[in-house]
Amino acid sequence: MIRVAMLSFWHVHAKDYAKQINEHPDTEIVAIWDEIGERGRKEAEARGVRFFESLDELLAQPDIDAVVVDTPSNMHRDVMVKAANAGKHIFTEKVLATTIREANEIVAAVEKAGVKLTVSLPRLNDGYTLAIQEVLEQGLLGELTLVRARLSHGGAVANWLPAHFYNLEQTGGGALIDLGCHPMYLTRLFLGLPESVTASYGYVTGKEVEDNAVAVLRYPNGALGVVEAGFVNKFSPFTLELHGTEGSLLFGTPDNRIVLRTSKLGEEASKTWSVKELAANRSTAIQQWVGHIRNNTVATENIALALDLTKLMEASNLSVQSEQSVKLSELGQEDGARWL
Amino acid sequence: MIRVAMLSFWHVHAKDYAKQINEHPDTEIVAIWDEIGERGRKEAEARGVRFFESLDELLAQPDIDAVVVDTPSNMHRDVMVKAANAGKHIFTEKVLATTIREANEIVAAVEKAGVKLTVSLPRLNDGYTLAIQEVLEQGLLGELTLVRARLSHGGAVANWLPAHFYNLEQTGGGALIDLGCHPMYLTRLFLGLPESVTASYGYVTGKEVEDNAVAVLRYPNGALGVVEAGFVNKFSPFTLELHGTEGSLLFGTPDNRIVLRTSKLGEEASKTWSVKELAANRSTAIQQWVGHIRNNTVATENIALALDLTKLMEASNLSVQSEQSVKLSELGQEDGARWL
Repeated sequence: MIRVAMLSFWHVHAKDYAKQINEHPDTEIVAIWDEIGERGRKEAEARGVRFFESLDELLAQPDIDAVVVDTPSNMHRDVMVKAANAGKHIFTEKVLATTIREANEIVAAVEKAGVKLTVSLPRLNDGYTLAIQEVLEQGLLGELTLVRARLSHGGAVANWLPAHFYNLEQTGGGALIDLGCHPMYLTRLFLGLPESVTASYGYVTGKEVEDNAVAVLRYPNGALGVVEAGFVNKFSPFTLELHGTEGSLLFGTPDNRIVLRTSKLGEEASKTWSVKELAANRSTAIQQWVGHIRNNTVATENIALALDLTKLMEASNLSVQSEQSVKLSELGQEDGARWL
Repeated sequence: MIRVAMLSFWHVHAKDYAKQINEHPDTEIVAIWDEIGERGRKEAEARGVRFFESLDELLAQPDIDAVVVDTPSNMHRDVMVKAANAGKHIFTEKVLATTIREANEIVAAVEKAGVKLTVSLPRLNDGYTLAIQEVLEQGLLGELTLVRARLSHGGAVANWLPAHFYNLEQTGGGALIDLGCHPMYLTRLFLGLPESVTASYGYVTGKEVEDNAVAVLRYPNGALGVVEAGFVNKFSPFTLELHGTEGSLLFGTPDNRIVLRTSKLGEEASKTWSVKELAANRSTAIQQWVGHIRNNTVATENIALALDLTKLMEASNLSVQSEQSVKLSELGQEDGARWL
């Protein structure tokens, strides 16, 4: 049995991960720490597990094998480096960290300690994503020239998001770094890492963080990625669009189905849109994490995509601050003073 | 009968306008000038009308009432100011001009001469646009927070666009200033004029002009507009998306129908997507132009939208050149040296 500690219930998804940990036959929650003591104590009491006032004390326990990190994003680096140094495996809600420098520090500590890290990037495992990857591998779209991914809910309009999700210091940003992670890592998955990012944020409900965001990714081959996220649209479907020189593919417009038109599958497929079956979902991020712990494997692709996601988010935030296009090669450098 | 001269057959749509002029009961083509003499002479012979080597000579003819301008975009200012000064009514393919300074000179000359100007912005008159305006007027989307409009064809991949459409000097740009005009003036119609524009261009086929483009419009109320255009996607549907705080609307995803989900029309409409009937098309831009000439009226909205369209295109081009966000208030100023 892998004995897991929950590190904070700050994130709205913390309870979901706790549920998955409890439901998994190989894992159980044995302890809780929270940067807000009252919140953590309450969760520990309800679950009948130990609560630790001190993170260091928790991490010093030899009968804790692993941690799930759901603290504010700006604490990720400190919490995860400590956890890795204490030899604990780590599952964490995205983003891994809000800057690539901090993300690299986490990954370095994880590699040094030889613990298993997995970042929650759940839509990598969904059937539509896997079906789209299949279409791309078959070359049915030709050269991919535009990917557009949109995810929005109405949380800021209907006011059901917790207030701390608008705390810029804790979150590192609003709609884009929260919801926008999903369209961002999917765009990165399909198109690769861009040369530069240009982002535009809107503040519809007047919060400290943006509640409306578009980031445009530019690639050396002329392709563009458009990543959209918002907290101000309750009926906006989750949408993916991929356009290439030989075909186009749409998902979620608004139905949760993939339609495809391509010149690569004969005359009928070049004249009409056909439905592409979704693939089966892959095992969840939590299941993958447990698998890596059990099999002593490394979540290589997951970690690489998580690092790229942080790069893209940091570049987006810097682009809005500077009102300029930001090259990814300029991130995380000691002399990065142009952005300050 | 309004006697019309065709000024150049440079633009791919020139023959369509000539056809519409011939089919309209109140107009006829009586003369042709072209900056490429051979092309103009051939068209004049085929149509049995006079060809003029000299634009000035043509404009001096008292039995020519009006002109249709289809020259390269960079000649629009010179040709139209001359035509207005000669007292000729003007119909022109978009864009009115490639810079707001030139566009203003054209409109000033038109106003001084009292001639009638109409710019071809055809999708303003399409049934989907009118139906969407109705939805907005009824407030069914609440506060509009995101408009996205996409238009792309495969002309640069299949190589069926005339080579001069890639001539940066003549066109003032590629996919965005050509195809992208339509999504741009529609986004402007729905959301108004933004505070600033940030654009990203791609060069998939390595032409002098961009063949892949995204422009993001930012508004003081937090709304964002996303305008996409390309020459590299033969199957990309013409798509409009409007998202607001109370509803969302999709058109062309990929079917040419409008679907709507809103909290403003009872429980059913907030749970499911319903089809909104398209309106009937309005009279064409050519018909509207003839009406303004006949009734001595001014195409006020058309001209205002055409001027805004030029502002948005100039801002997009400047944004790409400078890799910065461009405020519309900074355009066309004598001291606009920051962009040079």
